[in-house]
Amino acid sequence: MRPAKIDRILLAHGGGGQLSDDLIRHHILPKLNNDILAELTDSAKLDLASTSVCFTTDSYVVKPLFFNGGDIGKLAVCGTINDLAVAGARPVALALSLIIEEGLEFELLEKILASIGEAANQNDVSIVTGDTKTVEAGAADKIFINTAGIGVRLAGVDLTLNRITVGDKILINGTIGDHGLTIISQREGIAFQSQLKSDCAGIADLTCQLLKNGSGIKFMRDPTRGGLAATLNEICRGTGLSIEIHQTDIPVNPTVQAAADMLGFDVLNIANEGKFVAVVSPESADDCLNICKKHPLGKKTSIIGEVVETRDAPMVEMTTRIGGRRIVQMPSGHELPRIC
Amino acid sequence: MRPAKIDRILLAHGGGGQLSDDLIRHHILPKLNNDILAELTDSAKLDLASTSVCFTTDSYVVKPLFFNGGDIGKLAVCGTINDLAVAGARPVALALSLIIEEGLEFELLEKILASIGEAANQNDVSIVTGDTKTVEAGAADKIFINTAGIGVRLAGVDLTLNRITVGDKILINGTIGDHGLTIISQREGIAFQSQLKSDCAGIADLTCQLLKNGSGIKFMRDPTRGGLAATLNEICRGTGLSIEIHQTDIPVNPTVQAAADMLGFDVLNIANEGKFVAVVSPESADDCLNICKKHPLGKKTSIIGEVVETRDAPMVEMTTRIGGRRIVQMPSGHELPRIC
Repeated sequence: MRPAKIDRILLAHGGGGQLSDDLIRHHILPKLNNDILAELTDSAKLDLASTSVCFTTDSYVVKPLFFNGGDIGKLAVCGTINDLAVAGARPVALALSLIIEEGLEFELLEKILASIGEAANQNDVSIVTGDTKTVEAGAADKIFINTAGIGVRLAGVDLTLNRITVGDKILINGTIGDHGLTIISQREGIAFQSQLKSDCAGIADLTCQLLKNGSGIKFMRDPTRGGLAATLNEICRGTGLSIEIHQTDIPVNPTVQAAADMLGFDVLNIANEGKFVAVVSPESADDCLNICKKHPLGKKTSIIGEVVETRDAPMVEMTTRIGGRRIVQMPSGHELPRIC
Repeated sequence: MRPAKIDRILLAHGGGGQLSDDLIRHHILPKLNNDILAELTDSAKLDLASTSVCFTTDSYVVKPLFFNGGDIGKLAVCGTINDLAVAGARPVALALSLIIEEGLEFELLEKILASIGEAANQNDVSIVTGDTKTVEAGAADKIFINTAGIGVRLAGVDLTLNRITVGDKILINGTIGDHGLTIISQREGIAFQSQLKSDCAGIADLTCQLLKNGSGIKFMRDPTRGGLAATLNEICRGTGLSIEIHQTDIPVNPTVQAAADMLGFDVLNIANEGKFVAVVSPESADDCLNICKKHPLGKKTSIIGEVVETRDAPMVEMTTRIGGRRIVQMPSGHELPRIC
């Protein structure tokens, strides 16, 4: 029914009529196909493995839409998966909502949809329901994507700030700053000798393996916007305890460090999209480290510090490479807009 | 921590640092407060009453943000509730995601958040998790809202197109076209003698009462974008059957009809936001009608037609007020952009 000449999104593609139907049936469904989505009802009917679930949502406004290591579609799938993963859940179903600017090329939309489908497949989740809205040219920047997700909580897993105590170890599954510095350097058109690449990845397989095979895991969080600095400060605020980290133990890709230094960013404040921070009991830390290191997404896992007593106020302190100490503050948030 | 002079959203409010934390703690949480949301983890942990759930998502881009009968916040809560309701579920939890344009006044944001909180309360659902993104001035139109929702399916309820057969009655819980014509007339600055008012409302209480106390309910859908015409055509396409409706039985507010005539719209194509269409067996139709009429949101419920044999191709036909017949086509979607 669609005349061959329509190669861009029209406002009417969001109008709920024939063109909306066409967009969904001919462009979206083939890329994401599964039986539940194909029913095209307004709600997906799911039979979950448990009544104990996690539920999360994230909107994605990253600019540029495509970057080395990923794109807005892959990011939207992985980011929401990761929010479920760090809560101790196995992601099972995603809802996908698109806000599209009139005039977006179908070619570009299809690339993004293909990437969404591929990321969902790779991470063993289904896109079970969705929505598409269009806005007039100038009212949005090409495309914004929301993914909400449901995960089933792993039996016996209890991740909460309340369980954290002095002496617990802080673990991260690899290098920091890769995503944020890839985005900013690409946006600004800055080229580095060895190319930067986003760490964008779904970490649920790794976290599920860690939770099933490890012990003493008390809390996890993914250090996205605000980076490692924000995540560690949130842990301190939530527990009233303090954290000491050691700069030499924090994995940083040398190109990322060089880019951060040149652009005047602190890598601790830069967003990651395939990382998690775990707080684990001291006696289980080495076991957790070894479990992570066996996974493709955890080869560079490192124990970067520990939870310590609070003296004046809860804070994050870092022992630096040259032997000094500095406070790692909560970033203001001014660093990097539209990073995810 | 927030200097008193910040009265508009800054890009840094979406940066994941101190200002994001401030936005969430001081502006969002107080309006939506509940224990699960207050934990501020990336995923909400829920213990559902059943493993049999519905899951849905919708983004809202309505323009203007405030209209007679509602606003984007109320719409975002009710619209997602309604998608769960027509699937035969009792809505329990919503996820709220905001995409905010830099420069949006806090005053306006707080009005919207208050409306979200009020609508959630009135409809007995909790906002359990959320996300906030900011984009630079000009990259979005003030605010876009996504709500995803989880509902628990009512026991013994099976709503599916497959159950529809010839002779089934078509029921709607009140007047059509109110929402869409309110939006378009307000957007275009057209005033009508008696003011138009959106029907924006959460219908889950009504649908749950109908499903619990009625029988023979085979399928429900909310006639939003594309209006009654789109919903009925979707039923024909999905079943291969045809539908006959009777113009004199379709409730239309006279001001809505006058506005539609003046602006050149067919009320059948206009979006509703507090309505559902139900397909019910002929023997239970009167009972269903009476159950609906007792509910504040169903006083004008009407049986508007029936499912009939298909002759050539599945289609919706309407017997008109003057005794003629006309085909009710699937709208193209060109009618009304940004209606929800």
